[in-house]
Parts: sequence; C-alpha cells; structure tokens
Amino acid sequence: LNSAPGDPNDPVLRSWVPSSASGDFPIQNLPYGVFGERGAARPGVAIGDFVLDLRALAAAGLLAPAVADAPALFAEPSLNALAARGPQTWRALRARLSELLTEGNRELLEAGIAESVLVRRDAVDMLLPIQIGDYVDFYSSLEHATNLGKILRPGSEPLLPNWRHLPVGYHGRSGTVVVSGTPIVRPAGQRKSPDAAAPDFGPSRMLDFELEMGFVTATGPALGVPIAIERANDFILGAVLVNDWSARDIQAWEYQPLGPFLGKSFATSISPWIVSLEALEPYRVSGPAQEPEPLEYLREREPRSLDVALEVDLASDGMVRSGAPPQRISRGNMRGLYWSMAQQLTHLTSNGATIRAGDLCASGTISGSDPSSYGSMIELTWRGTEPLSLSDGSTRGFLEDGDRVTMRAFCEGAARPRIGFGEVSGTVLAAGAS
Amino acid sequence: LNSAPGDPNDPVLRSWVPSSASGDFPIQNLPYGVFGERGAARPGVAIGDFVLDLRALAAAGLLAPAVADAPALFAEPSLNALAARGPQTWRALRARLSELLTEGNRELLEAGIAESVLVRRDAVDMLLPIQIGDYVDFYSSLEHATNLGKILRPGSEPLLPNWRHLPVGYHGRSGTVVVSGTPIVRPAGQRKSPDAAAPDFGPSRMLDFELEMGFVTATGPALGVPIAIERANDFILGAVLVNDWSARDIQAWEYQPLGPFLGKSFATSISPWIVSLEALEPYRVSGPAQEPEPLEYLREREPRSLDVALEVDLASDGMVRSGAPPQRISRGNMRGLYWSMAQQLTHLTSNGATIRAGDLCASGTISGSDPSSYGSMIELTWRGTEPLSLSDGSTRGFLEDGDRVTMRAFCEGAARPRIGFGEVSGTVLAAGAS
Repeated sequence: LNSAPGDPNDPVLRSWVPSSASGDFPIQNLPYGVFGERGAARPGVAIGDFVLDLRALAAAGLLAPAVADAPALFAEPSLNALAARGPQTWRALRARLSELLTEGNRELLEAGIAESVLVRRDAVDMLLPIQIGDYVDFYSSLEHATNLGKILRPGSEPLLPNWRHLPVGYHGRSGTVVVSGTPIVRPAGQRKSPDAAAPDFGPSRMLDFELEMGFVTATGPALGVPIAIERANDFILGAVLVNDWSARDIQAWEYQPLGPFLGKSFATSISPWIVSLEALEPYRVSGPAQEPEPLEYLREREPRSLDVALEVDLASDGMVRSGAPPQRISRGNMRGLYWSMAQQLTHLTSNGATIRAGDLCASGTISGSDPSSYGSMIELTWRGTEPLSLSDGSTRGFLEDGDRVTMRAFCEGAARPRIGFGEVSGTVLAAGAS
Repeated sequence: LNSAPGDPNDPVLRSWVPSSASGDFPIQNLPYGVFGERGAARPGVAIGDFVLDLRALAAAGLLAPAVADAPALFAEPSLNALAARGPQTWRALRARLSELLTEGNRELLEAGIAESVLVRRDAVDMLLPIQIGDYVDFYSSLEHATNLGKILRPGSEPLLPNWRHLPVGYHGRSGTVVVSGTPIVRPAGQRKSPDAAAPDFGPSRMLDFELEMGFVTATGPALGVPIAIERANDFILGAVLVNDWSARDIQAWEYQPLGPFLGKSFATSISPWIVSLEALEPYRVSGPAQEPEPLEYLREREPRSLDVALEVDLASDGMVRSGAPPQRISRGNMRGLYWSMAQQLTHLTSNGATIRAGDLCASGTISGSDPSSYGSMIELTWRGTEPLSLSDGSTRGFLEDGDRVTMRAFCEGAARPRIGFGEVSGTVLAAGAS
C-alpha cells in the first residue's frame, strides 16, 4: 500500500465528486467511455455518480500542458485516438484527471465549469467506446477448454495437443460488437441433430452466453514486427467485460474445419467503460503455473494475472416484469486464466501481424474449477442435461426469449477502494424481432 | 450482344482515352481504385492507360446531376463512401463515366480539365481501395476442399458433412489486408512435426499462396435482419483478386478446434482495382450443379456464376534479377466455384449479422478439377511431394524467400472487350526483414 505522492492508485485518495457508497468508480478507477446526451456523443471518464466530459475539459484547456494536443484526443465519439497515443499519454492523462478530481482541488470550480463538465451517469446513454478494427477471441481458460472438450468430444483427451503450448484463438466479427444494453435477436441458422439425415434452418435452440474479459489495444509496430512479451502491456489501454453470445447448435454443425463463424458472429456485447491497465495494477497477482513452460517468446515475468471477481446474473422475462431480483448463476475470477492478456497479445503479433488502435481481444470464456464458477450455460447445465432452476419456477438448459443476462466484474482488496467495470447486459429477443 | 442505347456494357463502345492493345481496362470495365501521386491519395477509375481522378471530376461538377452530392463520395482516400451508397448510385455513376469517356464526348476537353483529371497509370501508386471492416474468407471450391481433405486427412472422406450444405467460412484479419505490391515478410510461428515431442518457434517452412476472388460490400440492413438471396448482389460493389498467403505448418499446429489464425493473419493481398458487378454481368454463366439442393435461403436463380479466367505466375529472385519471364504455374476459372458470391453473402447474414460498407469477403482458394488449375502450392505440389520445376533450374515445394507470386484475372468472350482485374503481386522477404 505504499504510494508515491501523486500516485493515482493511492488508496487514500478521495474525490470531491459525489459517489454512492460501494460504487464501481472511485477516483482510483477513472475508466474511459463514450456517452451520449442530447444527441452529442463524446468521450468521458466515470467518476463516482458522474461522467466527466473529456471533450469539454480539453476545450477548456484544463488538460494542458500534461497532455499534448488534448482536444484532438477527444474530437471523435470514440476512444481510438486515445488508444493510438500509447502509455505515456495514458499515464499523463490519468495523473492529470486524478489531480483535478482529488478532494481539495478547485480548478474546475474556479474555471466555472464544474457543473457543465460533470453529467450524472444515470442521465446519459453509453455508446460503444471504440471503433473496433479486428476482434480476436482467445480460448485461454484451461477449465473452460477442458469442460468443452469433455462435453463435445466425450471419451477423448479433452485438451487438444496445442492448448498448453499457445493461446488458441480465432478472429470474430468486429462489426457486430455492440455495447451493453443492446437487445440480442436470437439468431437463425443451420442446425443438424446427430440423428437427422440433413440439416434444417431455424432459430437457434441452444443460445448461450460466454463470460469473458477483453482488452483494447494501442497502435502496434509495422507489419512484420512482433511485440515482445516484456512490452506487451504497453500496448493495452485497458479492459472491458465481454459477453460472447454463442449459438451452440449452429456452431456445432458449421465449425469443421475452419472454426466458429455464424454461431458467434450475430452479436458480442461489451461493457461501456474501459478500465485502464494502470487502475488494475494494484490487483496484479501470480497466474497459474504453466506446464510445460511456454516457448521463450511467451515466457512472462510474474505476477502476470489479475485478481478480478466476476459475476453472472440471469433473469427471465417474468422475473424482470415482476421486479424479482435476477438470479446469480455464476461467480468466478479472472486470476485463474491460464494465458494472460500479455501472452495473448504477444502470440497474436508473433507472426508479424499488426494491431491497430482500438482492436479488441477477448479471453474466451472464463471458468474456474468449481462448477459455480463456470462461465457459460453449456458448462453450467452440462449441455442442458442439468438445467438451472430459476426463482420463478422455470428451468433453463440454454437461454430463452426474454432472458436478461448481466455480467459484472470488480477488483476488491482490503483497504483498497473497489475498482469496478460496471456491467454488460443484454436481453434475448425472439428470432425475427428487430 | 443486344445492348440498350447508353448501356455501359455495349461491346461496341470505345473511349477517346488512349489504351494499349488488349489492355485490362476498356470503357466497359471502369473499375474503381485509390491512387496516390505527389502525396495526395484519392479515388479514381481505370480507363485505358490512365486513371481518371474522381475527386477532381466531382469537384468540377461533371458528375452532377447524375450522382447526387458527388464530391462527398470521393472526399476520402477510400471507396467506402461509394460502397455505402448502394446500387442506384453505382449504376448512375458508371453510366455517367461511360458517357464522359465515350469516343466523341468532349465534355472534359471543353471544360479544359482533360489533361489534369487523367493521370497515366504507370506514374501512380495504387493504394488499398477500401478501409476494410470485416474480412471473411470462405471455402467455396469443391475441388480445393476435396484436395485439402485428401492431403490433410488421408484415408477419411475428404469433404466434411457440412460442406455441401453451407458455404463454410471464417473471419480473417482485416488489419493485415494489403494492396498488391506490398512485400510479404515470411512469418514465424509455432510448428510441430508429427514426430517431434514438442513444438518449436521459427520461420514458416511451408509458405503458400491461395488464389481467390473477393468482393466488397455495401452497407447492409440493421443487426438481426438477414439479406435474402434475391437481393444479395445489390449489396456487392464489385470484385477484387485476393492472395490469401498461408503458412501451412503454423496453421496445421494451431487450427484445432477454432480454425486458422496466425497461419493466415500475417498478410492477405488484394488487387487495387474493384471491378464492378455490373461490368461482370455479361460474363455471368450457370454454376456447377448443387447436390443436394441447398436449403431454401441459399437457393439462387441461375446463371449464378461468373466466367473469369485466372492465372498464377511464379518467379524466383534469380529469375526476377535476370529478367527471365515468370513461370505460369496455374490456369483456372472462377466459373466452377460451388458457392457463388450471393450465396456466400446471404449465408453470412443469415444469422442477422450486419455488413458494413467496405467489408471484404473472399471465395477461398479456387481450384479446378485439372491439376494445372490448382490454386495453391500445397495442391500443385501435393504438399511438397511433387515439387514444381522452375526455369532457373530450381524446384519448389513451397515458396522460398525472394519468390514473387503474381495473379491475374480477366473475362474474355468472342466479340466482347476484355474485362481485366489487373494483378495482385507480392514478393516474399526473409523472416525478420521489415
């Protein structure tokens, strides 16, 4: 808990901006998002119960000289320009925001803009925080990969031979990444049951969620130049929660030999706030042992993991309408992830592939060893064979129309303020509804 | 060969712009690209030996009133704005360009801009014509999928059960799509030979090309709304040649169970000119029979295929240096593709996934039934077991450093001018060179 003076992670810091008790957004967090209000979408930072308007703050000259050319950073309704700048700018901006928002600082008040640049969070709409270039989804949880192997290939070795040697991943559809709150239309597609002679086309009967943690990248080196593992975290602006919606029946029929396609591409939801890697640093912990030791380019110094608690809530349409509380169906933690964010990013560029500012990489479903921590319905219900019971008396093998899935993530430690991600939420609409 | 008056496909049309004999770009073609000259990159259309500067033409008012708000279409150094407008604008623009460029038309001369808006093609650099949102690669050639099945899974049924029911595809990396002429650095990655106990990391030993045809999309309907097969071609601006470079050894080790990733993502090259679907219409032909009949959403009226001749040339570094001609190593045709562009696009959106203006979809390797028409080294050399002999006395199982691969495509018919795609070319650089 030692902190240098002016350290934005100093746990004793407090802001003069009002905050509800146990909120996600103390001054030690300062996550970035894009908010809309009266038609104007612009970047902001969450502080307590408010959003600080970064475009207005930059226009008022209050980010200079700490951040060079600050107005250009926030001219667009996305955080891509900030992502492109890299870690020096990210650190300088965060330090300056921390300074401005710390109890006792009167610069916003004296400039007469405190009321105009701070907007109540409950009064704004949150938009997609980045224009995503490429979206890569990894498969980094040993427990999840093992569970899926057992469920989908019973009788064989659940982990494939490559899994412990590299972070398996594939490209998803960046154009269908949506922000929390966007309704999810049940996809239709080809499904074929094992006993059917031919596939048919219709609404997915095995709609699932996947609990994941994603990260947003900076601009990387030129084509052909990999990122060394020691530098990988310098290319990560921050993290978001990801719900990688999945239609298991469509996926099962289509995925050989080129991998998931339409079973995933209909929608991927992300939380609106990008929590900076800096804010997460106090929660860095050692990751699980890697056996065999990874090849040299993937060898990372410990602590390489992050202690982030994860929760999934499910509410049926009836529960939502009657005001019944949603049901907590999973509690996990990101710290058990086998492959770290730095290892994922290093592997991604090891063939010389470029990254652009605003690329999104997700972890893959995060499951722990205890069944209560599984991160998808296919695992929680063991492919529907052990349905979940909901408080309204209904059961679930997979998701039904009207179901609302809400994921939350947060860091909590003794004598440290909670660093929250907010939530990623989505409600399933019937096929054809849009 | 009947043509309505003013039909831009009328084979008797001739342009007043000079053209070498048997060029790719007669007035019936008019493909779109982005060219750079003296630092200014802007959209253009190829005509004969020249590029017509579309931004300057729009600024001079010569596209009004046929094309509404023409200057906005060409304000950016990409064709995304044009792609976004859709088929009515595409047809109107092409008709007006055809009119302006037809022998006898003096509008450019009378406006005094003929010399300034026409730039010699050999004096300009061609850039990536679109900012690509998502890149999807299909697997639409029956012959290619069968060959790969035989090579990679000997002894089993080469075609997987889903193949004849849907256009198998996966997402590639849009950020590493590069324009023809961009050098290709040999990727490094994990490879594991069957007899090795563990993988190692190093330069790919099985670098390959893949001969493909891609198409560029318009903006599609809202999330959750599929595109019906009858309307699919209205969402296709045009086609480009694609070389989907592949590292077979990296791919073989990584691809289970989520598909190709780093074995493909290091680079994909496209030709700089987007040939409009309109220009290709005279070459529409019936496609191969589909057995079993596709499900209803994929049933397309004939003629659904395109008669486009394809060629691949290979030259070693020594051949290039000595001025020896490159060697023709493959001649094929797109008409044999099992799944059409419309079927690919309809399938892609059948789950409600959106498309954006400037998305790129590629066919997958196009191979014919004759070995001389195979579209990749792994097929031409049967995984290196039957090496190709080059005119410099060397042999090739896969690509070596310094090798230059050049693909060309064109439509040719009796009494019709040749509609060419130009070429997509790339030279392999040694690993680490960049």
